[in-house]
Order: sequence, then structure tokens, then C-alpha cells
Amino acid sequence: MEIENAVPITWRFSQRAAQMQSSFIREILKITQRPEIISFAGGLPSPDTFPVEQMKAAFDTVLTNSGKVALQYGPTDGFPPLREWIANSLSTAGCTIAPEQVLMTSGSQQALDLIGKVLIDEGSRVLVETPSYLGALQAFSVYRPQFASVATDDDGLVPGSIEKVAIGARMLYALPNFQNPTGRSLSIPRRRELVETCARHNLPLIEDDPYGALSYKGEPFPKMLNMNPGGVIYMGSFSKVLTPGIRLGYVVAPLPLVRRLELAKQAADLHTAQLTQMVVHEVIKDGFLERHIPTIRALYANQCQAMLDALAACFPAGVSWTKPEGGMFIWVTLPKHIDTMKLLDHSIAERVAFVPGAPFYANEAETNTLRLSFVTVSPERIREGIAILGKLIAALM
Amino acid sequence: MEIENAVPITWRFSQRAAQMQSSFIREILKITQRPEIISFAGGLPSPDTFPVEQMKAAFDTVLTNSGKVALQYGPTDGFPPLREWIANSLSTAGCTIAPEQVLMTSGSQQALDLIGKVLIDEGSRVLVETPSYLGALQAFSVYRPQFASVATDDDGLVPGSIEKVAIGARMLYALPNFQNPTGRSLSIPRRRELVETCARHNLPLIEDDPYGALSYKGEPFPKMLNMNPGGVIYMGSFSKVLTPGIRLGYVVAPLPLVRRLELAKQAADLHTAQLTQMVVHEVIKDGFLERHIPTIRALYANQCQAMLDALAACFPAGVSWTKPEGGMFIWVTLPKHIDTMKLLDHSIAERVAFVPGAPFYANEAETNTLRLSFVTVSPERIREGIAILGKLIAALM
Repeated sequence: MEIENAVPITWRFSQRAAQMQSSFIREILKITQRPEIISFAGGLPSPDTFPVEQMKAAFDTVLTNSGKVALQYGPTDGFPPLREWIANSLSTAGCTIAPEQVLMTSGSQQALDLIGKVLIDEGSRVLVETPSYLGALQAFSVYRPQFASVATDDDGLVPGSIEKVAIGARMLYALPNFQNPTGRSLSIPRRRELVETCARHNLPLIEDDPYGALSYKGEPFPKMLNMNPGGVIYMGSFSKVLTPGIRLGYVVAPLPLVRRLELAKQAADLHTAQLTQMVVHEVIKDGFLERHIPTIRALYANQCQAMLDALAACFPAGVSWTKPEGGMFIWVTLPKHIDTMKLLDHSIAERVAFVPGAPFYANEAETNTLRLSFVTVSPERIREGIAILGKLIAALM
Repeated sequence: MEIENAVPITWRFSQRAAQMQSSFIREILKITQRPEIISFAGGLPSPDTFPVEQMKAAFDTVLTNSGKVALQYGPTDGFPPLREWIANSLSTAGCTIAPEQVLMTSGSQQALDLIGKVLIDEGSRVLVETPSYLGALQAFSVYRPQFASVATDDDGLVPGSIEKVAIGARMLYALPNFQNPTGRSLSIPRRRELVETCARHNLPLIEDDPYGALSYKGEPFPKMLNMNPGGVIYMGSFSKVLTPGIRLGYVVAPLPLVRRLELAKQAADLHTAQLTQMVVHEVIKDGFLERHIPTIRALYANQCQAMLDALAACFPAGVSWTKPEGGMFIWVTLPKHIDTMKLLDHSIAERVAFVPGAPFYANEAETNTLRLSFVTVSPERIREGIAILGKLIAALM
């Protein structure tokens, strides 16, 4: 059957593909899935929080009542009742979000890709936090921007620091609530200042918010979307409050932009599964998340506290870490001379994994940082793992 | 809450976004979904073929047995047992396809996007059939190639016609089986000739095959993939043999390319829903498609024959059309002076819809062509609609 002169292609990739790199985190995850490893490396939510029975019942209901619609091609912008639910959930007394502003996406990673596609030309300046979310850096990098790293501190991004780099930039990407990787949040006064600064510079502000609902105190931060709905692009996800494996997120943007994002999505994958959207709507439409999210908060708050206690007990002086009030991550800063990439080698040999901080920097990396996730590890294993890590760090100091 | 100087952004889109256009077909579909319209415009499979009960049972089984795995993040390349099933289904006595060559995608539209991302630079030459699949033109256009249109006739693409444009081109995109939009198939001798010509020019050959299983005689064409697995990129889909709304397709490529496509997918949407992949595997693993596909073929063959009979009875002399032996479409060529865009206005006023041919051409369009789909319309309505269309065409001649 095969032709006689069958020779493998000598591939010529596009310039954007030639520079693509695998996520370092995904590479680490392959190593750390062995059960004997105590892994603080994952960014996965705890499967104990997945509402399997509710999902099963909803699949049954939707397929029984509307099987042929749910399994047919659907609209690119999404399932209308779910878009309406999202618009309502984001509207406040002073700021109404319209369902037409909502575009459903295949996870919020797809929203990052679509935003990059529609706003970034080669060489466009894109402002990101220092450090920033790795998945966003990866998604935007495909379109070959120049990243400008914006200063951050314990109150999050420093709005004044964007003045110098905002002129001519295409967008600012921020993750203001319980940031990945640092666990930090942007203070409320800074939110207003940031929104105002961006508006003054005609700079689109991307507010990525996968963790906002996971505030341990149960009081979510105000959204920048509601402070300037004509200038903020908001991204949300069902991954952390329901389940990530269904791949369902959304982006909310002013109409001129959301229509472009919709065109980009049409070319990228036509639409996100109707069935998935109908099932999620079926699960959440009667207030399920209001009962469910507090159980996730309680679980994560408990494990976060266990890790903070263990860090205080086991890590040597000279090491500092963030104290998150929500979300899934703690960020650790070691003395300057310790390279956490090298520490990881020692650590894996001792059956403990984490993610070194360097990949989270768009420009110059602080190689003495690392990210710890506590959500999939029991308090006992957290104490055990942090003790091992503390000894390794002490030995290097 | 809103800031005082809230002003809407003046948007500056990327060059690729500034040129994006909505699919003309999707625009037509919005008009033609009114129940009184006899629509031959859709590219949707018939919902009568969706195995709703089997899907429902499989969701229940997978969520019961492996709910927490199915709902968690999963690998970018896909669910291993499904990739293995696909590799087996594409392997022949002389040509083994490895599971590692299979990348699961969010519908085969995503495979088009990823291929464009990884192989096309601005200005790259991309060879396409005349006419070609609109969704592919849309997906590739995002990356701003120069399309070279390759000649076709009733035996499909004319391999000799690529010689002049193959040198320096990045890829050739072909839909060899029951093509969308023409319903034509590439003859077997031409398949070998095309594969050889592409291999000689080191030109990646994309074999898009959503309809191959829908051969009315039940004898699928040989795949070009198996003639030169080192040079052919094969795309498949569950949309036409199972259900499109779940958005599940796949691309099979030589390892150096499939690894790049996987990196591009990681940045684009991390992975395709595990649950969907596990459910599809659950449905098909024991030979379901071998029993199911013949029922789709029989339904479509019957409706295709009804349309061919109606065309012969109702369309005036001077009009010609293809006689597909599979798939979902018939392609009609009217006398040169009739513009099918204008015909559509008349036709919709008479409650009949079709898709004008012009959008399917990458370069100069033949404006006297149109596409008819018969798969979602009953034989009675097919006869009624074709009679109305025949009268309108006769009046213009």
C-alpha cells in the first residue's frame, strides 16, 4: 500500500511554533504522580470537592429531556441560559452585565488564547505581574509579544509602576484574587487605582479570576469589571468551584471585543460542548454553588493553615512566605543564593515535590522562589513534607 | 462603585483579528432555523442518528466507576485507551499507526487551528482545493497565509496541478472523501499520485476525513495516511458518526509534528475534556460504530437519492450537479450568469435555503455554484424544496 518513495517530511515549523516550550509544571507533574511522592507541585483542585453525584444526575436529566439538542452543534457564543446566569452573577446594584457580553470558552485557558489572538501582534507590549500565571505567559507567547513585568508586593500589583510601560501597550494581564503563583491579592484601594490608571492610558485590563470565590472568610473582593465595565476583560471558570475536567470557562468583555473573540473562537473550535454547558447550568441554576463553595473553602482553609503552621515550625529563619486568605497556593522566598531548581532535585530524591518559581517570571527570574500547593495533600502529609523540605533548605543555608 | 473617569476602551485589534470575518454559513443558519424554512443550508448531521441512550448509559457508567478521574484535569494528548483505539482503527496490514501519533482535539476544527498555528507564518503559501472547506479556510486565515487554489474535477483534486505551486509551500490541505462542499471523492489512482507528488516536494499533506465512514456502499476509500505515514497529517472526528455537540476530534501526525501540535494545544486549552473522551471510548470500545454507522449511511443514502431524483425531475437543462456516493452534500453549478448570492434572496423569500458557493473559494470564486445538504430534511420536504428552487432557477435562465 505504501508508496515507493515514502520519505518522512523534513519539517519546517512556523516561527511561533519553533519557540514553543512545554510547561515546566506539566513536566514536573509527570514525575510527581508516583504515589510515594508528597506533591505540593500540582495546581489541581482536590477531587474530594467534585460533585460527582450532582453531575451524574444532571447528565441524565439533560440527555433525557434534551438529548438531541445537547448533542447537536451549538452557537459559538454559548448556551443562552448559562450566559444569562453568568451575567446575573457578575452584575451589581450599580453595574449590569449583559448576557451578550459573555462568551463561553473551553476552559479559561482558551480565553487566554483568544485574547492573545485578538489583541497581540508580534512585538506588542503586554504588561504582566511579577511573577505571573504560567499558563497565561504560555498562551500569550504564541503570539510573540514583548512582556513588560510590572512590580508587585504583598498588596499585589503596584499600580504606579505601570505608568512607564503603559503607553502603547496592548493590555495588562492581572490575577487579582489569591494569585497563582503567589496566593497574594490586590488590595481594594489599589484596584480602583489600577482601573483608573488603565482607563487613563486606554489600556485594556484583563482580570483573570479563577480563585475569587475561594475566599476562606467567604467575602469575595470587589471585581474590577464592575469598576469600569467598558475597559475590563473579565475571565471566569468552573474549574475551581465545580470541576476542571469538563473544560468550561468564560470571558466577559465590552461588545466590540467580545464579538472579535467570538469570531476567533469560531475559527478555533466552533463552540464549546452544548451538553457540558447545559449540564453545568442544570447543576448550578438553583443555587447549588452557594451551598457547595463553602465546603471547598473550609477544606482548603484547613489545609492552608496546616501548611502555614508547618512552615512556621519547620522552615529556618531567613525564609519568608505569603499568608493567603483564599485560593490554592503559598509562595516561598529563600535566601538569594539558593536556586530552587537545584533544590527540587534534592527534594524529589527525598520524595517531596514543589514548583520552582523561575518559570512564572516573564523576564528576569527570581530563582530563589518556589510555589507550594496544599489543596490535594492531607494535613499529616503536609506536615511530613514541609519538615523534609525545611531540613533540605536549612542544610543549604 | 464605578470609577469616575470610566471611559470605554478604543480598541486596537491585532492585524489577524482586524481581518476576521464571520462564517457566511453561520450567518445563513441564523436565518434558516425558522421551522417554515426548508433548509438545505445546514452542515449539521441528522439528530435522528445520535445515540442518545448509549451516551446516557456511558455517562452514567464512567461517572459511577471513575467520576473523580473523569472530572479532573487530564493529559494534553488525550485519554490513552481512546488514542489506542484510534491508532488501531487507522492501522493496516502494512502500516501501523502508534497511539503516540494521535492527539485528541476539541472537534476537528481545533486540529485545523493547531495545524495553522504550527505550520503557517504570515505569507506562507498554503495549497487548497477549488473549492475547499470553509472552516479550514477560516482557521488557516487567522495565520495570514497566501492560499494557492489547486484545480479539481469530478475525480477530485488534480495532482499534476500542484507542481507549479508546491515549491516552498508549507502544506496542502485536502478533503478527499465526499468533500465538503462538493460531495466529490478523490479517485484511488490520484491518491497515490498526490501522495507521491507531495513526498517529492517535501510538502506536508493534510488529509481531512470527517465523512470517510459515510460511504453509502459501505466501502471506505483507502487512506493517504497509510500510503505515506511520514508525510501525511490525518484528521478524524466523531461528529459525523456519533455526535458533533460533544466536540471530539483527533489529528494523527508524524511524531515531530504531533509533539508541536501538543504544545500548541497545551497553550490553547490545556486538554480536551477527559469525561467526554472516556464516555466516547465507553460507547465505541465494543464495536458499537460497526453496528451504528450502517444506519447513518442508509438514512443519508436514501435522502441523497431523493434529492438526486428531485434534481433530475425539477432542475432545468443547463444546470449540473455532483452525484455523491457518500457524505452529506451535493454541489450544483448553474449557468455562469446566475449569481447564487442573489438567488438566495429569492429562495429564502420562497422558504428554501441553501449555501451559495462563493465563500468556499480561497481565491477567485465561481459565483454560479451552490451547496445543498440533504441529511436533515425528509424526502417529502426535499422534493418540495428542490421543486421551488428549480422554478426560481428556470425563471432566471
